[in-house]
Amino acid sequence: MNGIGAHEVIIESPDHNATLAALPQQAMEEVLWAYRDRMEDLKKDRRFHYTLIFKNEGLAAGATLEHTHSQLIALPIVPIQVQEELDGCKRHYDLKERCIFCDIIRQEIQSGSRVVFESSLFIALAPYAPRFPFETWIMPKQHMSCYASATNEEYRDLAALLQNVLRRIDQALSYPPYNYIIHTSPLREENNDYYHWHIELMPKLKNVAGFEWGSGFYINPTPPEEAAKFLRDIKL
Amino acid sequence: MNGIGAHEVIIESPDHNATLAALPQQAMEEVLWAYRDRMEDLKKDRRFHYTLIFKNEGLAAGATLEHTHSQLIALPIVPIQVQEELDGCKRHYDLKERCIFCDIIRQEIQSGSRVVFESSLFIALAPYAPRFPFETWIMPKQHMSCYASATNEEYRDLAALLQNVLRRIDQALSYPPYNYIIHTSPLREENNDYYHWHIELMPKLKNVAGFEWGSGFYINPTPPEEAAKFLRDIKL
Repeated sequence: MNGIGAHEVIIESPDHNATLAALPQQAMEEVLWAYRDRMEDLKKDRRFHYTLIFKNEGLAAGATLEHTHSQLIALPIVPIQVQEELDGCKRHYDLKERCIFCDIIRQEIQSGSRVVFESSLFIALAPYAPRFPFETWIMPKQHMSCYASATNEEYRDLAALLQNVLRRIDQALSYPPYNYIIHTSPLREENNDYYHWHIELMPKLKNVAGFEWGSGFYINPTPPEEAAKFLRDIKL
Repeated sequence: MNGIGAHEVIIESPDHNATLAALPQQAMEEVLWAYRDRMEDLKKDRRFHYTLIFKNEGLAAGATLEHTHSQLIALPIVPIQVQEELDGCKRHYDLKERCIFCDIIRQEIQSGSRVVFESSLFIALAPYAPRFPFETWIMPKQHMSCYASATNEEYRDLAALLQNVLRRIDQALSYPPYNYIIHTSPLREENNDYYHWHIELMPKLKNVAGFEWGSGFYINPTPPEEAAKFLRDIKL
């Protein structure tokens, strides 16, 4: 392994006081395209095996710059957390010959109790066992393993849905600090049947403490069905 | 697995304004004995497989009570983080027939550059690859897998060393919030050759953000040799 990487900051707006949730939809779409274009460009460097894209909003979520931005870190290895998720998906696929996220989406749409919002191409839901109150996952409804292979139409749909969800969270929780992370397949393993790219969005409402650090378990007092209902019922 | 557990709060002093670092040494010893006694008592309940003891000091470290306290959570399973550490130690032991922590202690005493403080029975050091600035591990120098099997003399020595380290951290970093966690062997697997109980102490100087959540990797700008030297050079 080479000790090599790249770190890029994606400035989401020229306006110092803008927030991602309140950008014009066209600007949100451009942010999503910037993610994609930087991923595709960095992929040309064969030393990189993963590009991690994430956003820290607010001091408690680790943001050290005020101006609205996201970050990209290209890594010479697949990060351990990503690898564990890939391995879990692979095990499910080997057993069932189906993508686990496709299974989850089907089940959640059927039950409805954890769905936050659904558009024609994407779904936002509270996962069955969230680590954090109001943790929300956003997924393409059709199977797709790589963020960068989405279409024009998909980025447009996602821009609208992501802003819709962020605005619900802002209203429900009074503009909380949050992190989101794009979970996508490793570079040059883009198209596979077992992994399904998605965004994990985590409002930062409390501090992670000794129990979580010591156990790897997360204490979450808010059931996902309640969080989803609360977000669903927000009037935008 | 039963959905059963226990959660206890260990109140470290009757004085509302006391801090653990500044308690009389006798009181610190009593806290260590309270940890041990509660561990031993909860062990009698065969449904519990692990007792996790930790301290959150300060709001940013997750403390929701101001009065100085630690916590114990008894669990019906061995937590995933603990199991991963046990598995790693077991692999090293199977390969070398030596405890990995005994190996680390021998190596660190020899090199000296990451040692924070050494007493007759315990050592405090900055680990080779710390996740956080000023992360410090405290270990018995003799092999011992279970916190609860320490002797009178060992608890006395540990009380003095732990307070010594906490005071150095308080002076160096202006009374930072911190977490510490006792890493010990699972209940009823107390005595083994491959695991070595220890305390992991982590000042909370910055927020964990998207990169850490997404990758499982930790960005730490402070080399352990610098942190150890800084703490070593503090005049108490």
